[in-house]
Amino acid sequence: MAVLLSTLATEIVIPVAAVVGIVFSLVQWFLVSLVKVTPERNAPPSGPNSNKNGCNDYLIEEEEGLNDQNVVVKCAEIQNAISEGSTSFLFTMYQYVGVFMVVFAILIFLFLGSVEGFSTKSQPCTYDAAKTCKPALATAIFSTVAFVLGGITSVLSGFLGMKIATYANARTTLEARKGVGKAFITAFRSGAVMGFLLAANGLLVLFITINLFKLYYGDDWEGLFESITGYGLGGSSMALFGRVGGGIYTKAADVGADLVGKVERNIPEDDPRNPAVIADNVGDNVGDIAGMGSDLFGSYAESSCAALVVASISSFGINHEFTPMLYPLLISSVGIIVCLITTLFATDFFEIKAVKEIEPALKKQLIISTVLMTIGIAIVSWIALPSSFTIFNFGVQKVVKNWQLFLCVAVGLWAGLIIGFVTEYYTSNAYSPVQDVADSCRTGAATNVIFGLALGYKSHFVSFSFAAMYGIAVAALGMLSTIATGLAIDAYGPISDNAGGIAEMAGMSHRIRERTDALDAAGNTTAAIGKGFAIGSAALVSLALFGAFVSRAAISTVDVLTPKVFIGLIVGAMLPYWFSAMTMKSVGSAALKMVEEVRRQFNTIPGLMEGTAKPDYATCVKISTDASIKEMIPPGALVILTPLIVGTFFGVETLSGVLAGSLVSGVQIAISASNTGGAWDNAKKYIEAGASEHARTLGPKGSDPHKAAVIGDTIGDPLKDTSGPSLNILIKLMAVESLVFAPFFATHGGLLFKIF
Amino acid sequence: MAVLLSTLATEIVIPVAAVVGIVFSLVQWFLVSLVKVTPERNAPPSGPNSNKNGCNDYLIEEEEGLNDQNVVVKCAEIQNAISEGSTSFLFTMYQYVGVFMVVFAILIFLFLGSVEGFSTKSQPCTYDAAKTCKPALATAIFSTVAFVLGGITSVLSGFLGMKIATYANARTTLEARKGVGKAFITAFRSGAVMGFLLAANGLLVLFITINLFKLYYGDDWEGLFESITGYGLGGSSMALFGRVGGGIYTKAADVGADLVGKVERNIPEDDPRNPAVIADNVGDNVGDIAGMGSDLFGSYAESSCAALVVASISSFGINHEFTPMLYPLLISSVGIIVCLITTLFATDFFEIKAVKEIEPALKKQLIISTVLMTIGIAIVSWIALPSSFTIFNFGVQKVVKNWQLFLCVAVGLWAGLIIGFVTEYYTSNAYSPVQDVADSCRTGAATNVIFGLALGYKSHFVSFSFAAMYGIAVAALGMLSTIATGLAIDAYGPISDNAGGIAEMAGMSHRIRERTDALDAAGNTTAAIGKGFAIGSAALVSLALFGAFVSRAAISTVDVLTPKVFIGLIVGAMLPYWFSAMTMKSVGSAALKMVEEVRRQFNTIPGLMEGTAKPDYATCVKISTDASIKEMIPPGALVILTPLIVGTFFGVETLSGVLAGSLVSGVQIAISASNTGGAWDNAKKYIEAGASEHARTLGPKGSDPHKAAVIGDTIGDPLKDTSGPSLNILIKLMAVESLVFAPFFATHGGLLFKIF
Repeated sequence: MAVLLSTLATEIVIPVAAVVGIVFSLVQWFLVSLVKVTPERNAPPSGPNSNKNGCNDYLIEEEEGLNDQNVVVKCAEIQNAISEGSTSFLFTMYQYVGVFMVVFAILIFLFLGSVEGFSTKSQPCTYDAAKTCKPALATAIFSTVAFVLGGITSVLSGFLGMKIATYANARTTLEARKGVGKAFITAFRSGAVMGFLLAANGLLVLFITINLFKLYYGDDWEGLFESITGYGLGGSSMALFGRVGGGIYTKAADVGADLVGKVERNIPEDDPRNPAVIADNVGDNVGDIAGMGSDLFGSYAESSCAALVVASISSFGINHEFTPMLYPLLISSVGIIVCLITTLFATDFFEIKAVKEIEPALKKQLIISTVLMTIGIAIVSWIALPSSFTIFNFGVQKVVKNWQLFLCVAVGLWAGLIIGFVTEYYTSNAYSPVQDVADSCRTGAATNVIFGLALGYKSHFVSFSFAAMYGIAVAALGMLSTIATGLAIDAYGPISDNAGGIAEMAGMSHRIRERTDALDAAGNTTAAIGKGFAIGSAALVSLALFGAFVSRAAISTVDVLTPKVFIGLIVGAMLPYWFSAMTMKSVGSAALKMVEEVRRQFNTIPGLMEGTAKPDYATCVKISTDASIKEMIPPGALVILTPLIVGTFFGVETLSGVLAGSLVSGVQIAISASNTGGAWDNAKKYIEAGASEHARTLGPKGSDPHKAAVIGDTIGDPLKDTSGPSLNILIKLMAVESLVFAPFFATHGGLLFKIF
Repeated sequence: MAVLLSTLATEIVIPVAAVVGIVFSLVQWFLVSLVKVTPERNAPPSGPNSNKNGCNDYLIEEEEGLNDQNVVVKCAEIQNAISEGSTSFLFTMYQYVGVFMVVFAILIFLFLGSVEGFSTKSQPCTYDAAKTCKPALATAIFSTVAFVLGGITSVLSGFLGMKIATYANARTTLEARKGVGKAFITAFRSGAVMGFLLAANGLLVLFITINLFKLYYGDDWEGLFESITGYGLGGSSMALFGRVGGGIYTKAADVGADLVGKVERNIPEDDPRNPAVIADNVGDNVGDIAGMGSDLFGSYAESSCAALVVASISSFGINHEFTPMLYPLLISSVGIIVCLITTLFATDFFEIKAVKEIEPALKKQLIISTVLMTIGIAIVSWIALPSSFTIFNFGVQKVVKNWQLFLCVAVGLWAGLIIGFVTEYYTSNAYSPVQDVADSCRTGAATNVIFGLALGYKSHFVSFSFAAMYGIAVAALGMLSTIATGLAIDAYGPISDNAGGIAEMAGMSHRIRERTDALDAAGNTTAAIGKGFAIGSAALVSLALFGAFVSRAAISTVDVLTPKVFIGLIVGAMLPYWFSAMTMKSVGSAALKMVEEVRRQFNTIPGLMEGTAKPDYATCVKISTDASIKEMIPPGALVILTPLIVGTFFGVETLSGVLAGSLVSGVQIAISASNTGGAWDNAKKYIEAGASEHARTLGPKGSDPHKAAVIGDTIGDPLKDTSGPSLNILIKLMAVESLVFAPFFATHGGLLFKIF
């Protein structure tokens, strides 16, 4: 039965949606660029306005310091320093990334090419021996190409995101002079640039790649979509560098700046006298913006690839129905349009009029996009899918209705929203006394694990029973369908944070700082949501990839009772611990170097503490850059090499055990790390704010409970900002790598058992 | 082919070995009792001896304060208080345990009886349908009886161990007046009483139970050994109470005593003015002695039962060859004799002449017993096993040679030794600066996990490939074959610790305290070994139980790819986190109550700080007792109820996933908790001791690094003494419970899937 949406329409709808997304993001960028960071020649002299409203509203209404051209110059300077630091880090990283990509591309080619001994002869297809498929050598070449394309797209997305973020931070600061509403719009628009660029670029490149590969593969869709998985691997391995390297950078700079500046020298946060202050702000951009961007891009690319490779052996894959085959891309296309409309709710349809409206406005974004997207999914499922089709489920065929697939995607979408809100609820709930914090964090985290995971895996259960592994893959896709909005909100946080930093460094008034702080506070809340979302999607994506790997490696059962699988399970469950230990250690070493440099500058530069001499920001930036890139290598190697070694020497059964083990324990450690860190952070803030009677009995700053909370926060910080997020990459990357190398492992893997 | 050892010889050898063990332990007890804690009427006046030797030797040579009869009276008083407190805790716990045992016995009977609808008719055997086996109702009755017997044996062993420990502590203190060598022998002999009583009792009761049950079952060995598994469940569920309750008790008292006494009031540890000081010493006995005893007894009973139930369907089980069938018990019998000889090396063959000889003497015990036991295993394997026999391996028969089974047991034995030493190496290695402690602990723990587990699972791999699940079961048994020596060393630690406490409280001289401290220090090192050993054996035992469960529930594969199993895996991996969170919270609440009471006493009892008034020790003991028993219930319920609920509602596949998940993540968390705690503890001690230049730069007591180390230690303490050890029970108990209830779950389980 033909579907409502013709092949031609599909071929038009997807690129159009992608282009619309790109254009929209450029428009947002243009709107941000209207804020000038160069001193205006004939600025109208604006005297101090009268404060017409109550205490809370002056943040909105009063325009302040608009005529101070010095401030603008200073802001521009600081912005330049941050932008240069970020660019320098990314370019240094890209050198390593470039080497890695070349080496890994060669590896992919060699491993996959060797499956059929580099034969150029066509071979009978795996799932339909009567037909002829392209040789394994073709898969090797095209997988390599897809890998490189995925890597480049990821790098580009991260880089552009970082560019707009460093472009927008000073502009947000300057807009804060006009009121908190204007500043919010600037920050949010900039976030949207990143979100839309990433989502639309990812979709467009994937779409073009599929169409180009199709020119060669023709009818061999099995080979075509096998090769496409390289795209996911490329995206994901860049995410490894972004997340791990960026994570180490941001925490090393942060800890270094705080330990010497705040603790030893007793100067406030973001004080321009602190030599590590620029590095700290750079860290926010490379860690939270570029890192988060490449992480979510990786998830997006991987879930699309997992869905495509499973779909390629479904009934519409075998019958070559193009529209249902590209159902995952159609979902993403609709997602871009839905997010576009959603964004307008924040920037155009409504206006922020008070500080307390910021956080609800951000949360509303999530809810609106989810509701609209549900309708979008329903439409796509109705017009792009046959009303009934067949999915392969480990050898058995399973009939799936289109409404069932709609439910799979929708359940993933809503699970993402709920996981986000549950995470936020648990981390923002800082009601316990400090003595209980460690305990309460643990309980909170544990309870959270239960609720969040119960939900996530309920969606897994529903999806699996409806459409086997394809259901899980599209559920992951559903969770990521509103990625543009999700990323916009995520990027908004560090931009506001940076804006506050710039205001402080430029010596702007207390009121401006209050405004940026209000923006930042809302961003912190949504950061927890973003982290929960990233972990949830990583869990679902890696499950989908795991399923795809098992299908492709032709394993029919992953039986825990066999020693091969069991040993894999144990090793896999151990990896996240080992990886966390390595990343924590890396942060420690990098931070130590930073501390030494900051101390050195304070001790050797005369007049630094008095503010008469400028610190040497560039050296700190360089130290952070070099240390984080050096320290990134061991944990990165662990993730990259484990599947290769296990697959080659122990074979696919053990590898499947490793994947299951790392998935099961990685997700729990990630959630636990992220929530424990968040809860400790909030416990500290709770005492510092002293907003309740109870909080005041624990404070003020410097009291014993406060010190204890600071220690908790210091331990929790690398947990939540480095180890936790990096674990997402661990579980996804190992799965997608196994998937890409599956043909090799299935043919030549398990050397150790073959020899003995 | 008949084996060398006749049935009659087997029937004689096992009880004789058990009785020898019991007699030996009574002899040791008698030797300890020769030390009098009543003032001697005509004590010879012993003047101060001249210090002939160097500084180190005075600990050995000089006899000090022998004529001070007041000290003896005081020691006797304190010992009484500790003994009464411990007894009162255990008796209060036994009331709850009694109720639990009755309820659970009824549950076992009802669940297992319902398998065949309480029919009294005989049924065809599962593995040989031609034969007639006893009805399920018989299994229900006998399992219940075995459960009760196991519970009572465990309770008895824990109680007697605690009795001898509280009997020996003051005697050790008094012997310390005569020199460190004499004190060492007293402490070690007392530990041996506990070790031998436990090992021999466990063996004897199991042997008698088998023989009694055989009177009814006759030829139906399948049913006979199915019922016997109840013995393991009984032993293990008591261990739950002992470990969890005892663990909460000991940490609540410890934290309570330290927080108010050491931190707030600035009085030394074990100061008699501290109201919680008796409770603290009681805690050592109920936690480390009774708790550790019931934990290892549980492991011992479970591994024996797992081996027996798997063996019952082997070729010698089916052919009713009694001697090979009782191979596990023969191993334990030889173990008792080997440990007996080993003990003589510590107490009679050599004499401790200097402080530095204590630790090597303890470690030598482990090495000697392992070497001797290897020979013992070889002999038993040669005379008690057919040279070749068949084991069922999930439906397939596997031929096993007797030397292969020897290797399985031996590999378990040696793995235990090596795990112990690896653990010790990592926790005693406190070389990193305090800023790095958190990191170094993590790395240490992670590295340790890798080495220890790699080894443990290598033994698993070897054992499995040799003799399938039977190999794993006997490997666990091998690890536990030298349990008497292991327990003697473990019990030695808290006894020495208590001896030191008594010396302080009785106001004995600084020199006596130095001697007991030297004993205690050696005990701390071996405590790490004991913990590693307990975790390693728990991991191996639960794997064996898991295998036995899967066999008995007639599951042929535990396929991670099916949602039923996968969801089980996730839930199982989550349980150890949840459980740890609950136990940590329990310690927190119990400690809080203790802190309040200690503060109250300091504030309301006049003259307490001046030492003119006595504190109310009994109230503190009561608070610890009540709080720990109350707080023990939620985590206990989690462990007990999970298998029942999962098995009944979700069925055996999901349950097998839960078991695999909890095993995989539980072991890692247990090791990580235990090692992190140990490393933090040692980092603190390292700073306090100030033995190196580096350590002195971090100290002295009260410096910032020291404070940080104390905080680390406070967090680490409940981790290593409550959560970590309790996790052993979690993974073992859930497995053995599933095994006992397997016939019910296999028949009536999975209600939820049956209804929908």
